[in-house]
Amino acid sequence: MSTASLSVPSLTAHVPCGTIHGVGLGPGAPDLLSVRADRLVRGARHVAYFRKVGRPGQARRIAEGMLRADAIEIPMEYPVTTEIPLSDPRYNACLSAFYADCTERLAELARAGEDIVVLCEGDPFFYGSFMHLHARLTGMVPVAVVPGITGMAGAWNATGVPITWGDDVLTVAMATLPEEELARRIRDTDALVVMKIGRNLPKLRRAVAAAGREDAAWLVEHAAMPGQRVTRLVEATSVTPYFSILLIHGQGRRP
Amino acid sequence: MSTASLSVPSLTAHVPCGTIHGVGLGPGAPDLLSVRADRLVRGARHVAYFRKVGRPGQARRIAEGMLRADAIEIPMEYPVTTEIPLSDPRYNACLSAFYADCTERLAELARAGEDIVVLCEGDPFFYGSFMHLHARLTGMVPVAVVPGITGMAGAWNATGVPITWGDDVLTVAMATLPEEELARRIRDTDALVVMKIGRNLPKLRRAVAAAGREDAAWLVEHAAMPGQRVTRLVEATSVTPYFSILLIHGQGRRP
Repeated sequence: MSTASLSVPSLTAHVPCGTIHGVGLGPGAPDLLSVRADRLVRGARHVAYFRKVGRPGQARRIAEGMLRADAIEIPMEYPVTTEIPLSDPRYNACLSAFYADCTERLAELARAGEDIVVLCEGDPFFYGSFMHLHARLTGMVPVAVVPGITGMAGAWNATGVPITWGDDVLTVAMATLPEEELARRIRDTDALVVMKIGRNLPKLRRAVAAAGREDAAWLVEHAAMPGQRVTRLVEATSVTPYFSILLIHGQGRRP
Repeated sequence: MSTASLSVPSLTAHVPCGTIHGVGLGPGAPDLLSVRADRLVRGARHVAYFRKVGRPGQARRIAEGMLRADAIEIPMEYPVTTEIPLSDPRYNACLSAFYADCTERLAELARAGEDIVVLCEGDPFFYGSFMHLHARLTGMVPVAVVPGITGMAGAWNATGVPITWGDDVLTVAMATLPEEELARRIRDTDALVVMKIGRNLPKLRRAVAAAGREDAAWLVEHAAMPGQRVTRLVEATSVTPYFSILLIHGQGRRP
């Protein structure tokens, strides 16, 4: 790999510590990785990524066909995703132990002198799972982050319409918020992005309706990927909510 | 250029119409262009970009060293920027005529069969000038857009701290908004991005203070570029407000 190791002291003497790269892969298309990300992914000996048990993982899917033939893959499988409600303290405890575990696994490899690329959908610092490793790894071993094109930029690009003009306010909210709160946010913004829709789609629909903005709302599925689809929210009957982003475009100043 | 022209009828018979590509260059570093953008920029015969009179232009600067030796450059120079207040109707009229002019210039080239790359900072559909050409060109000649890493992603990456966690709400606002409105938005969000700071920095400082969030606010100058600098707002005395983005990081759920 082209990236030089930073000079952080290593526990195994004489072996310089490797770097853990959190690499943003962008919204889905393989040629929407940055040049820097593309170089790192194609050159990596050790490639880690999150996924659900039994699933290929969205980040790994984007990198399909890009990995070295001798790349060693490190899938990190979430212990829970939707089985335990977010409000249950066991949810946090379970995930916390999982992230600590992944951290130890990657740090050990880095201390042995290996560079590791962690594949991240979109941008690593924007609602990403990598942040939970980043927070734990910082100070332990060298960590570097490569920003990426966000999934939401892929989504508004898919609609063929700009998301914000002039002085527009853009609000990005998660569909996991309470319905009232969602409705208030949707009412009080020019442009809107809602992510983490999943099982919250019926609630989100009600919130958009309560805010009186149903006619302006679009759902984008699988942005920048095969199967990309853009649907008006009011016409969306068979969307794939787990890979969808909801958008309302701003209508600001346009000379 | 590698991109095939789309089959839209051309006015000059027998010459297939060229495509106008609005290409997002990302936040500033030359290796943070997407692979698709990099290929288009390096292959382009005709390269257009906006700039202020007498300035190289930020987009053109990012592409420095990437253009073909025989590339034909088309600088599009803003007739006004800050000389006329936004509220003055002449501001809109003047810019509108300028965009119409640029549109005609590029459309004419496309009709003659030439592909054109329009260099865009960040992402073309996110508060960009290209949108004003896109709106006018659509339906006239083939237009394609390549999304990019936003300037704000470059900025939060520069701080080394994630911008949003869990259910955080992110608000993106322009410093051109009225002070009261800015203060209200800053008070009512988890994470914050403020752009178009320029001469509005004193107003923005007052709004952040009124919202009681001075200690959490950071200014990022020249993100992902030479001269990148990250400063706490309270310590920022000599910032370059024209190339700055203000950030407040979210503090959401982190297992």
